Parts: sequence; C-alpha cells; structure tokens
Amino acid sequence: MTKMIDISAMPAELSEKNTLTARRLGIDTHEHAVIYMRADCHICRAEGFNNHARIKVSGPSNKAIIATLNLVVTDLLSPGQIGLSETAWLRLQLNEGDPVRLIHPAPLLSLSAVRAKIFGEPLDQNNLDAIVGDIAAGRFSDIHLSAFLTASAAHEQSFEEIRDLTLSMVNVGQRLDWGRAPIVDKHCVGGLPGNRTTPIVVAICVAAGLTMPKTSSRAITSPAGTADTMETLAPVELDVSAMRRVVETVGGCIVWGGAVALSPVDDTLIRIERALDIDSDGQLVASVLSKKIAAGATHLVIDMPVGPTAKVRTEEAAARLEGLFARVGSNLGLNLKIMRTDGSQPVGRGIGPALEAWDVLAVLNNEGHNVPDLTVQATLLAGELLEMGQAAPAGRGAELATELLVNGRAWRAFEAICEAQGGFREPPTAPHYQVIQSPRDGVVGRIDNRRLAKAAKLAGAPASKAAGIVLHAKLGSQMVKGQPLYSLHSQSLGELSYAHDYLASQPEIIEIEEEQCPR
Amino acid sequence: MTKMIDISAMPAELSEKNTLTARRLGIDTHEHAVIYMRADCHICRAEGFNNHARIKVSGPSNKAIIATLNLVVTDLLSPGQIGLSETAWLRLQLNEGDPVRLIHPAPLLSLSAVRAKIFGEPLDQNNLDAIVGDIAAGRFSDIHLSAFLTASAAHEQSFEEIRDLTLSMVNVGQRLDWGRAPIVDKHCVGGLPGNRTTPIVVAICVAAGLTMPKTSSRAITSPAGTADTMETLAPVELDVSAMRRVVETVGGCIVWGGAVALSPVDDTLIRIERALDIDSDGQLVASVLSKKIAAGATHLVIDMPVGPTAKVRTEEAAARLEGLFARVGSNLGLNLKIMRTDGSQPVGRGIGPALEAWDVLAVLNNEGHNVPDLTVQATLLAGELLEMGQAAPAGRGAELATELLVNGRAWRAFEAICEAQGGFREPPTAPHYQVIQSPRDGVVGRIDNRRLAKAAKLAGAPASKAAGIVLHAKLGSQMVKGQPLYSLHSQSLGELSYAHDYLASQPEIIEIEEEQCPR
Repeated sequence: MTKMIDISAMPAELSEKNTLTARRLGIDTHEHAVIYMRADCHICRAEGFNNHARIKVSGPSNKAIIATLNLVVTDLLSPGQIGLSETAWLRLQLNEGDPVRLIHPAPLLSLSAVRAKIFGEPLDQNNLDAIVGDIAAGRFSDIHLSAFLTASAAHEQSFEEIRDLTLSMVNVGQRLDWGRAPIVDKHCVGGLPGNRTTPIVVAICVAAGLTMPKTSSRAITSPAGTADTMETLAPVELDVSAMRRVVETVGGCIVWGGAVALSPVDDTLIRIERALDIDSDGQLVASVLSKKIAAGATHLVIDMPVGPTAKVRTEEAAARLEGLFARVGSNLGLNLKIMRTDGSQPVGRGIGPALEAWDVLAVLNNEGHNVPDLTVQATLLAGELLEMGQAAPAGRGAELATELLVNGRAWRAFEAICEAQGGFREPPTAPHYQVIQSPRDGVVGRIDNRRLAKAAKLAGAPASKAAGIVLHAKLGSQMVKGQPLYSLHSQSLGELSYAHDYLASQPEIIEIEEEQCPR
Repeated sequence: MTKMIDISAMPAELSEKNTLTARRLGIDTHEHAVIYMRADCHICRAEGFNNHARIKVSGPSNKAIIATLNLVVTDLLSPGQIGLSETAWLRLQLNEGDPVRLIHPAPLLSLSAVRAKIFGEPLDQNNLDAIVGDIAAGRFSDIHLSAFLTASAAHEQSFEEIRDLTLSMVNVGQRLDWGRAPIVDKHCVGGLPGNRTTPIVVAICVAAGLTMPKTSSRAITSPAGTADTMETLAPVELDVSAMRRVVETVGGCIVWGGAVALSPVDDTLIRIERALDIDSDGQLVASVLSKKIAAGATHLVIDMPVGPTAKVRTEEAAARLEGLFARVGSNLGLNLKIMRTDGSQPVGRGIGPALEAWDVLAVLNNEGHNVPDLTVQATLLAGELLEMGQAAPAGRGAELATELLVNGRAWRAFEAICEAQGGFREPPTAPHYQVIQSPRDGVVGRIDNRRLAKAAKLAGAPASKAAGIVLHAKLGSQMVKGQPLYSLHSQSLGELSYAHDYLASQPEIIEIEEEQCPR
C-alpha cells in the first residue's frame, strides 16, 4: 500500500514530468507574475501545488521567475497547457508552445529578517541585501512587501539601516559610470502639488555645459511625478544604452528611472507605499539616494518644501530628514545640499502630468511671468547646481540660471533633450472640466495641498495624463464672489463626478477669508 | 475643445453605460475577487480604471463586492463581456450573461487608522470596527491586510485594543445563542505538533452530558489544525443551521469555524499571518476569544504548551499571554481557565491531518497505551471542563474523563457526532514514505518542534491530508544505530523530495545523545 522510494534517483525523472506547454492568455496582471493551470493537472497533484501557491517557473531562455498559481476549473486551457500572464510571459521571454518547467521555490529565508524587524530588531547589511535581493528577484508577494515597509515605518530606521538599505538598493541594479565629474542631479522630496522644476533645472544646467543624467520617478502618492509630466512632452521609457546615448549627445536627459533598472526595487516599494499611502523618512532617503548613486551623481541638490500641508510639515521634521539625507549622503561619498523651500501652497498653476507640463513650457518659453513662483524656484535650484558644479561663481548661480532662460539657451537645450529622447510632443488637454468659484468676496487665506492633491487624483491624475487641477488664485489673491478659484480637469465623466463628490463632502480646500479691515 | 458639463445630471446616465455581460472564466483566484476586462473596454476609459484597480462590482442579486481588475489584451473576452474569477462569480451569485455594473469604490477611510497604528498610535473601538468591517466586506487588499497585522505586531497591542478588536471581530459575524448554560469549549494555543486533543475532549464532554459546540480553525503556521484533522474523519464544512442541528441532536460538534461565519475575518487574517509566519499575542487572543464568544461559549479551557521550541517558549511569555487571555476573557464575561502543559516535544505519534486522526482514533478505541501522552493530556483538559461545567465534583474530573474513555461512551459520542456531521470516514494513508534512522546508539535528548513541523509542512501537510511525520521515538527513548527515529509521509514524490532536501540541510532535528555513564 505505501511504498518506499529512493530519493536520490528522483530529480532527473521529475524534471521531465514537470513540463507544460506555454500559452499566452493575454491577461495583464500588473507587476505580479501569474500562471494558470488546470485544477486536474498532474503536476499540481505530483508537486502538491495549491491554489495561490508561489511557484518557480522557467522556460527555454533559462530565466526563472516566481509566479502565483491560479487554478482553472473550466476548459480555458487544454490538458498539458499552462497559461501565463503578460508579466510572466515577457519576463520569461517565451514563445507560444515553449516548454515551461515548474518547481517549488527555495524557502524565502529573508522573511526571518523581516520578522525580526517587525519585532523591533535592527537589520544589518546582510539582512538588507537578502531582503532587497529577494524583492528584486520577485520572490516577495504583496503580503511580504507590505510587511517589510510597514515594519520599517513602525520602528524608525537607524542611520546605519538607512545607509545599508541604500547600498543594498544600489547594488541590486545597474550603476552608471560616466567617466567624468561633476555629474549633477536634483531631487524634490515632494508633497507640494505642481512643483515641477526638474525639466527646467535640467535644461538650464545642460545649457550651462554641465552633465545632468536625470532619472525620475512616477508619482508615489501625488497626482504627478516628474516622469509622468515629462512623458507628456517626450518619451521617457529609455533603457540604459538609449539613456547613455542621449546624455553623450546632448549633455542630459529626463527619463523614467524604472526603465533603466537603477535601484530597480524602488518602484516595487513605491507601488506598495502608494497603496498604503505611507512614505517613511528612512525609506524616502534610501529611495532618493539609491537612485542618485546608481545614476552616477556626484553633486546633488535636494528641494525640501516645508509647510503645514506639504510632505514635510514642520521645521523639526525638516531638520530630522535633512540630517538623515546629509549623513547618509556624505557617508556614501555624495556632495549634497538641501534647500528648504516654501511649502505653504502649490507651485505654478497646474496639478497633474500634462497641466504641470504646460507650466514648464511657459517658463522655458519666457512666459514665466504667468508662473512666477515656479520660475523663481527653478532658477534658485539650478543656480545652486551651477555653483556646485563650478559653472558659475559662488553667489552668482541664480543670476546665470535666469540669463539662460531669458536668452533661450535653456529652451534649446530642452528641445534637444526631447528630440534625443524620441521627439518633442505637445501635452494633451482634458475633454471635461468644471470650475469651482469663490463662494464670497475676500482673500485666499489657506490652501490645503493634501486635499487638493487628492481631488486631482480623484479626477484621474496621474494615470489620466490630462487630468488634474488648475489654480486660478494663489495665497493672498483678492477674490470676488463667483470668480474662478480653481478648476477640475478630467478625461472621463466618471472621474469628474468622483472628484466632484469628494469636493462636495469637504470643507473649503482653498479658504477665502473675509477681510477684517476693508479700506 | 473642452466642454463644461453638469455633474448633477450624471449618475443615471452612467449607471446604464457602466454595464457589461458576465462570463464565468473558471479561474480560481483563491480568496481574491478578480475581474477581467478588455484593455479597449469603454468603461475603463470612461471611468479611468487602470490595471490592478480595485473596483466595486454588482450583479442582479444586488450583492456588491470589491474586485481587482486585470486587463485582457487578447480576444479571450468579446467586446462588452467581463470575465469573473470563481470567487467573484460565487460571491455575486451570477448566471452566465447577467449584466454586471462597475463603479469606483468609496475611499478606504479605515486606512488612516491603520496608518496611525503603524506610527504607534493605539486604535479605539471605532477604528477597529471600521477596519474589521472593511476587512469583512473584502475592501482590504493583501497589502492593507499585511500592513494592519504587521503594525499590530510591531506595536504591542494594549489590553483595551485587544478587547476592542475581539468585540469588533465578534460583531462583524454571527453570534450563536444556545438558550442554555453552561456551553463548554476548549482551545490550544498551538505550536506543539500532534497535540490533537480536541476531538477526544469533545467526545468525553458530550458523553458526560455537557454541550460543546466546537468550531475549530485550519492550520495557521502548523502542519495541521483541528479542522484539518477532523476533516479526515467526517465533514466539517457545516453552515450554522447544520451545526445547530448536530448540536441539538447529539450535544456537540467539531466543525470548521470558517464555514459558520463566526468571527469571519479571522480566517482572512490567518491567511496573511501564515504567509508572514507571525502570530502576535494580541492577534492570538482576539482570534481565539472572538471565535469562542461568537460560538456562545460560557466556560473555556485553554491548553498552553510551554517549551523551548513550542509557540510559547518561556514561563514569562506564558504568564504574559495568560494574563491577556484572563483579562480580556473575564472582561467579556467568559469563565476561563488556562492549563500550562509540557511543550518540550510533540504529543502523540502523528504530525499532519490524517496521521493525527489515527492517534485520536487510538485513544478513543482504548488503544491509548500507544499514545499515552495524548491520552493523559486529553483527560486532564476534559476533566477540567467536566468540573467547570459541574458534570464532575471538584478534583474528580480527570477520573471521570478516563472512565468515559474506558467504558466506550466517549467513542460512541464521537461516532454519533461524526454521523450527525455527515458520516464517519477512515483517514487516508500516504502512498510514499521514507524512514529516518537513528545515526548512533544513545538516548533521545532533544526534539525541535519547529523544524519538525516545517519538515511535515514541506512533505505536504496540511493541504495534503495524509502527509506529515510519524515519530517512532520520544524524549528519553533508548535508540540503537539504524533504528527508525521518525518517518516522512507524503502524497507526492515532489513533496517527499522537498522535505528530504530540507532535512539534509539541517542539523539533527531529533538529537541522539550518547550516554555518558553506560551501565
């Protein structure tokens, strides 16, 4: 009835039995690799694969991934077939009918380090290398990723942990070497809608002869990331060789970091942070610095808006984050400067990928008077980099930056970058909009960045490129009842309605204060 | 180009446009509800649904669920069709071709409470009601569930939080009222492989005339839960009315708690805890007590094995957990007793659903001499309940329990329970096994419960019912080199090989110490 078997003779035999024929089902499961197998498949029985099991899958290319099993109880698949989601199919570089092999994955050893962190133990470089390596290899499910990020937020990460995490994140991807210095870079810690200085700063620095190979993120919890905005102006999904060609040709670029595999786990972590709407200090520092170090940056300016509804709300929080950035950065050999900026209201007029792109174009085309705050912010940041990179004398950076805007050289540099990345294009405009009017006479007294950003997201940003908000007033603006305060833009009626419902449920996001002492 | 629209006129219009035709794809996505839509579907565009969006879905039955969107880029679906996973299909009670309506779900407001907990703020009853309610409604993704459990483990839950969580978990499901007292119950905090006393205790208590409507869990991180074991002896997936009928007829039952919707979020939380391999004190107390209170228990005995490789490792940890159980239990009106038991080695011989069932049958059939430790443990626990329930005088419970085993009344009560639940059946045996022999002469000095449990899981338990481990020696057993120490049992060669590889990579799980002073 039961029989005794010789284990040592098994592997070869198994390797042939565990093969199925690949079929592209065309199901896009986002970042998750999913495989579909018939519930009556002999391999499920033989290997004890249960529904939702994590399975190691390999094809003829010899690449292997960990995928989640979904069982199929109808005739969607023929016997002997295995269905693969788009992500699984593309990662394994399969062709229709290829043989696919399935085995149990090795146990997820780094999970014990995650558990230790949950219970408050710090993680060392080995732990973090193991965790980040397993994330990069796709071995962490959403459950594991969320636990790692939650534990990291729950127990404040030490300086050593953040530095080690940064290094782990750099080491698991490519690291660019430009064979020269300085390589300048900038980053904004975000939280301020519309603060889209990057394309302007890159254009100015490149116009001044500096090398600025900028990789940017998509939005984490905001209505637009720089990559989202830049994508409305030119292609941003360049691979490393294309990025290198652009930078060698024109001196700079503005591309999506995710496509060049610099700090590749960052985007995975960002997806989870977005779902949880958290972004801890340690994770933020590691995310930013790993990207910069991997991109080969030597000199970095960090724009840190501070304000009651910005990401960094108080001067104390700013000082803590600044200290972390400075300490980790200098420890890793990065020349780093932090500029605290005014985070009390959005910068520019637009909030959302395309709407912010229109503001960028205004500044570069000498229509900066329409968005004076964005113009000032961009020239200050660019000026700092011009000085750090010795393209301008100390104290004269901002002046040179302004000059490069006015004389059109920054615009020409930007055009050259867009052309080199695949061609300049005009940002889209939204088919639907709704104007929110001032409910009374008075002065704009407060603007809630967070709820404004939320409304922009409900309107469809950043996924709907043209969606978002346009501000028609800023802090201190004199308003007359019925005058446009801001407008919602969206690509669909459903989204417009959704954003509108949210606004209707909220107190004023832009507060109009009646003047106390009318003249 | 852009047009202004009247928002107030939209909803009715949208409700007709947002309808697709249901198609059962037969894809089993486990607990997750998934919907499949063509990437070119007009609703995706109109509503701004992105890949992996969470969408509120409803059918003609008026039930609504939150499902995850997967886009389909091939002709798997015709235009106008929507595919639904098995979970989504069954929850919505659809028929082929039914109209299905899609809208944006309301924002997940309870997520802000989860974030507060991540950053160390305690949760109150309102927060917990909101979180548990959203979990019960399927609004939490794996990412959210994992963050909630991780945060709860990272910041020790206060007594108040655990009590409130327990109540939230009770209130979100059914609560049974048996119209009489006492209603006795037992629970083991687990961590000790093979400790399958429950079926024996229920049989004894029912034989003594007590009412014991026992609901049990499936395994969390162990090779078998009581429900897994009981399922090899009789059906356990009874709904509440079937459970009630069984208890009214024979005085007790042993059913799977998940099927009767008592504390329904518990199984969802357990799935995540299993993936993370964590089980915090607070979560454990809430999980156990919510099930017992919902089941209508008035008197509860908790078996708490303590040992270096049990779930509770030290007397300090036991005291802490005991204090939590006692305080939360009495606060919620439960008469509760905790018995610390020896957790230094497995109880009985078998580890795994069916292998443990065979041990249970041995005790009930007066072959308890083969599993003396299981017999003693079960009669002590049953004795305590007999005394609490006033079926035995103080100090005489264990004696009566033994008598009911010996005179066959416990066995007859067990047979009656199995019959009432749908019929007794014999547990399966595994087609493959491998014996691990003693590497030397000596005495069994230590047994590592955790690694033994892990090996049993790698062999396929609990999903493969017949899989697991049989111990041929216990602590203190005299061994001769080559004598059987334990054996691996599995339903597939793949699993046997997998468990074997693990054992080969480990130091001895059962340590044989050479005798220092041979006589």
